[in-house]
Amino acid sequence: MNADRRTGYALPQATDELWADIADTPSILVDLDVVEANIENTARHLAERGLANRPHIKTHKLPDLAHAQIAAGAAGVTCQTLFEAEVMADAGISDILISYNVLGAAKHKRLADLAARAKITVTADSAEVVVGLSGAMSANGAAIDVLVELDCGMKRCGVRSADEAAALATLIDGSPGLTFAGVMGYPPPDNGRAAAAALASAASACRNAGLDVRTVSSGGTPDLRYVEADGVMTEYRPGSYIYNDRSLVARGACTEADCALTVLTTVIGVYGSRITLDAGSKSLSADLFGLTGHGLIRGLAGADIHALSEEHGHVLLGSEKPPRVGDRLRVIPNHACVVTHLFDEVILVRGDRFAARKRVEARGRG
Amino acid sequence: MNADRRTGYALPQATDELWADIADTPSILVDLDVVEANIENTARHLAERGLANRPHIKTHKLPDLAHAQIAAGAAGVTCQTLFEAEVMADAGISDILISYNVLGAAKHKRLADLAARAKITVTADSAEVVVGLSGAMSANGAAIDVLVELDCGMKRCGVRSADEAAALATLIDGSPGLTFAGVMGYPPPDNGRAAAAALASAASACRNAGLDVRTVSSGGTPDLRYVEADGVMTEYRPGSYIYNDRSLVARGACTEADCALTVLTTVIGVYGSRITLDAGSKSLSADLFGLTGHGLIRGLAGADIHALSEEHGHVLLGSEKPPRVGDRLRVIPNHACVVTHLFDEVILVRGDRFAARKRVEARGRG
Repeated sequence: MNADRRTGYALPQATDELWADIADTPSILVDLDVVEANIENTARHLAERGLANRPHIKTHKLPDLAHAQIAAGAAGVTCQTLFEAEVMADAGISDILISYNVLGAAKHKRLADLAARAKITVTADSAEVVVGLSGAMSANGAAIDVLVELDCGMKRCGVRSADEAAALATLIDGSPGLTFAGVMGYPPPDNGRAAAAALASAASACRNAGLDVRTVSSGGTPDLRYVEADGVMTEYRPGSYIYNDRSLVARGACTEADCALTVLTTVIGVYGSRITLDAGSKSLSADLFGLTGHGLIRGLAGADIHALSEEHGHVLLGSEKPPRVGDRLRVIPNHACVVTHLFDEVILVRGDRFAARKRVEARGRG
Repeated sequence: MNADRRTGYALPQATDELWADIADTPSILVDLDVVEANIENTARHLAERGLANRPHIKTHKLPDLAHAQIAAGAAGVTCQTLFEAEVMADAGISDILISYNVLGAAKHKRLADLAARAKITVTADSAEVVVGLSGAMSANGAAIDVLVELDCGMKRCGVRSADEAAALATLIDGSPGLTFAGVMGYPPPDNGRAAAAALASAASACRNAGLDVRTVSSGGTPDLRYVEADGVMTEYRPGSYIYNDRSLVARGACTEADCALTVLTTVIGVYGSRITLDAGSKSLSADLFGLTGHGLIRGLAGADIHALSEEHGHVLLGSEKPPRVGDRLRVIPNHACVVTHLFDEVILVRGDRFAARKRVEARGRG
């Protein structure tokens, strides 16, 4: 990170005109000290288990943080959209997995262009996707690696058996412009071990079909702490770990102190035991992510953000002393990854010091 | 609207390369024929009741559509953020209500600048807000109108009694740089009549305090159909009516045919009775808005978008024939206003014809 360490201004007070210029509300604050600790701890955790780390940048969408992840030893990055991958390639990231079925003429053309300037891997789970990719790569003289996506219980994408995986891998292997590279899955939380077994079985089936399986890839921050070297899995794709959020605190995957991203908000009204914030569903997102309430207010542990309007957070206070109109509060959101998608920029801090301002370059669709 | 009528290209097929260039997925399509009918019907509905129409532009955030609303007779527009108001003023809209407590040095400065180039009204519900506004306007030689916000049952913002309204109105009336203009409220759905009575009572209390009450303003699309001339209310602020959405269909406030905004999405996987779309919570938003499921798929009435990942919609099909991988579908979202906030541009269509592409200029924070 090229931001100055421990320089800058003291963190926001309602009446502080300097901070009012730096960070009006609602806005996102990201604490770099926490980010760096999260990056380092996860890099070590995976390295100790002999697994390549391929962090998912959908959580932050920031080239600088992707570079920090690479500098800490990541093998490359994972992206969920083609635009994220384009932004990462523009920023000089050279090894990119797009863990998604890429379909359609416009995206095929962009994918071929991208493959000319970075090592690109995509996933596929159907013959339609494979045939489309091969046609596009052949037509453009491009080449990409393809992982077969296996449904590990998420019921989202993925072939549904080891035999299907081997059949699709064989199709990929025979398709011009494509190189079969292995298998991947995204398990639902608390299914990491079952997913690892299913991936091992799919990898075996592919090997039995005579194919080289270089990569066996799983992911997800909730199960990151349970990941073990099993002699089969080769890489892991954690995303949310870099910021963490209220859902991960609730799952016991991290503590409140590990949460790097907060939404800075102003108290715009105090009504007895109720207060109203200027952060609503257009700032915190309405994503409950299995929780009750819409975020955790730092310093007001008993407060419940029980409802959101688009630009208002509706809060019932606990027994704490009410804040005043104009006070600024920081909210740990339920789900940091969707909050990233709601703001054009983040304000980087270190503890209570301003560090830098960054555009969320991979937000949007390009 | 300066888009060509009835020209352009036929609407999307998966294999249509021209449409693939015009509208990759996920993206927003807005049908101008439906928009224009919605604008016209609501303008007539309010005009027949002798009420000024001050549409809330948070739903679309597009200067062109604000101008279309003004052209149909709207007295001005309503905005929920200062940035929305700045974009509207830049586009030449001259009469703007910001229905929000504006607080903090940075926003006060922007508000004073804005007041120099458009007729600006804001709302206030506390002495803190009023004192801040007056200080900022005085310091900058600016002047704005202020409405007292009354809580009409939403428990969000607003003074909580007619007496409080009159006391705050008196404070505004004596504050340099501010002109007391009247009272406003935002009732929760199905509370329009109770809200109108509460607003009438607050207006009376202000008049009894010797103040001129020019404006008595209510709002909300759900109750728009029940609005009646009561001799007290002077204006109405509907927002969602211009696009409508699944929540308004569910409330009986409109039909599916009245929904102007759809999210165009590609089927990226078909798995027996399940399909997966490339529109997830970063495209449709996770806002349930009191409903079950995350949107209505046009042409697949029995399909249930039962869960969202960030870039995936998880769908259980009904008895209909499954679509194919690569097919494009259109989803009416639960809540159109939050979807507007998730995309940088909208694609305007007329029926099945492309019309124009517009940047969502008032998205973001400025």
